Amino acid sequence: MKNAGIIIIGNEILSGRTMDKNSNFICKNCTEIGLQVNKVVIIPDNKKKIIKIVKEFSKEYDYVFVTGGIGPTHDDITAEAVALAFKRKLRLNLKAKKLLISYYNKSNIELNDSRMKMAYIPERAQLILNPVSSAPGFKVNNVWVMAGVPKIMQAMFTCSIKPKIKKEKNIYSEELIIFKAEGDIAKILELLQIKYPRIQIGSYPFMLPPQFGTNAVFRATNLNIIKKAIKELIQNLKKNSIEFSKK
Amino acid sequence: MKNAGIIIIGNEILSGRTMDKNSNFICKNCTEIGLQVNKVVIIPDNKKKIIKIVKEFSKEYDYVFVTGGIGPTHDDITAEAVALAFKRKLRLNLKAKKLLISYYNKSNIELNDSRMKMAYIPERAQLILNPVSSAPGFKVNNVWVMAGVPKIMQAMFTCSIKPKIKKEKNIYSEELIIFKAEGDIAKILELLQIKYPRIQIGSYPFMLPPQFGTNAVFRATNLNIIKKAIKELIQNLKKNSIEFSKK
Repeated sequence: MKNAGIIIIGNEILSGRTMDKNSNFICKNCTEIGLQVNKVVIIPDNKKKIIKIVKEFSKEYDYVFVTGGIGPTHDDITAEAVALAFKRKLRLNLKAKKLLISYYNKSNIELNDSRMKMAYIPERAQLILNPVSSAPGFKVNNVWVMAGVPKIMQAMFTCSIKPKIKKEKNIYSEELIIFKAEGDIAKILELLQIKYPRIQIGSYPFMLPPQFGTNAVFRATNLNIIKKAIKELIQNLKKNSIEFSKK
Repeated sequence: MKNAGIIIIGNEILSGRTMDKNSNFICKNCTEIGLQVNKVVIIPDNKKKIIKIVKEFSKEYDYVFVTGGIGPTHDDITAEAVALAFKRKLRLNLKAKKLLISYYNKSNIELNDSRMKMAYIPERAQLILNPVSSAPGFKVNNVWVMAGVPKIMQAMFTCSIKPKIKKEKNIYSEELIIFKAEGDIAKILELLQIKYPRIQIGSYPFMLPPQFGTNAVFRATNLNIIKKAIKELIQNLKKNSIEFSKK
């Protein structure tokens, strides 16, 4: 099974000013296309730190998704840092320049030097199109670099990244809602996990006052095994008169 | 300035099923007490990975905050992993046992073996009290381990952690809302950043159709410098007839 790592760049996230929603979007989409996300990391707008983590992730994971820091201002240093990580030059990309010219020609906005900075891309990178505001992301080796603004990042991922990634094995997920606190069914789930090591069985408590309950989540690349395990769990719950419902 | 690292543990977050809200809460609170968060990492419920990252973060950061994986079920392995990271034994903690007995005595819920597992804590750890559901978190060296359920984590942090951390230097933050796209004021902000290297100046675009705008965020441990820089920025904006408002 292919895996992925996600790098979220931004001081505003580490200060707590902004809540990161990008990693959740990418995680969901990776699951849909059968990529297992193994790590998410949030780091500041710091060139050295970006270079170090991009190198590390590029070696460690099949796919690396990066968001943030490719805008027109002084704190947008991701393109330069990724270029340095791969020992490539940051160059004016003519296709990116054309995209910016075409977009800004249609608007009242001046394509000044600050904005033209967004056309400087590591050499030999592929562009990731931006249907919202034109300034593209880019891909170097296995590293896909996107904007940090969620709306733009989502459009880039959906339109220009997802269709290019070959769908890997399906990751199936089924959920059973059990109306019993997880402490009461922990033993049942533990024995099931031991019997089915190829399923990832997760136990997540919920409160629906006055009742406690548990969401049991079954994840695996084989749907039949999941169905078999859930059938066994249901039999066990019925035997113990524990209520449940399928999600 | 003291720094912090945050470790979020949970398969459900990496699969995209659950959105992590814990790191944002902790980041905000760290800023309030003057701790600079340098890194957030999200990793799966995997013993080896937890051990490795806990060791790494404990060496690297002054404060390490961990959430997730201290419940009663088979996938709750954080306490064991943290014990192994510090080469300590996982032992039945008598104070934790008392807390559980007292809580479950008052309820209709049985304190079975699965629940008693939550009283097994690395030896010589300090407990972090849990005012919601009694099962405590714990602190080993500079590593503070909390529950993953946001309500419980927040209560632990607010009641039992924040009061114990000596307030470090204040981190001041001021924001100016500028009604001009960031590409138009990038040069102004860049020159200001060069002149004031001790301020972290962030530029965050927003859209309020049909208008574009920029939130300029100034962060530093010296409020006077921030005020001076903002005054200078305001003069510059006025000179260029750019509208703005204070937040």
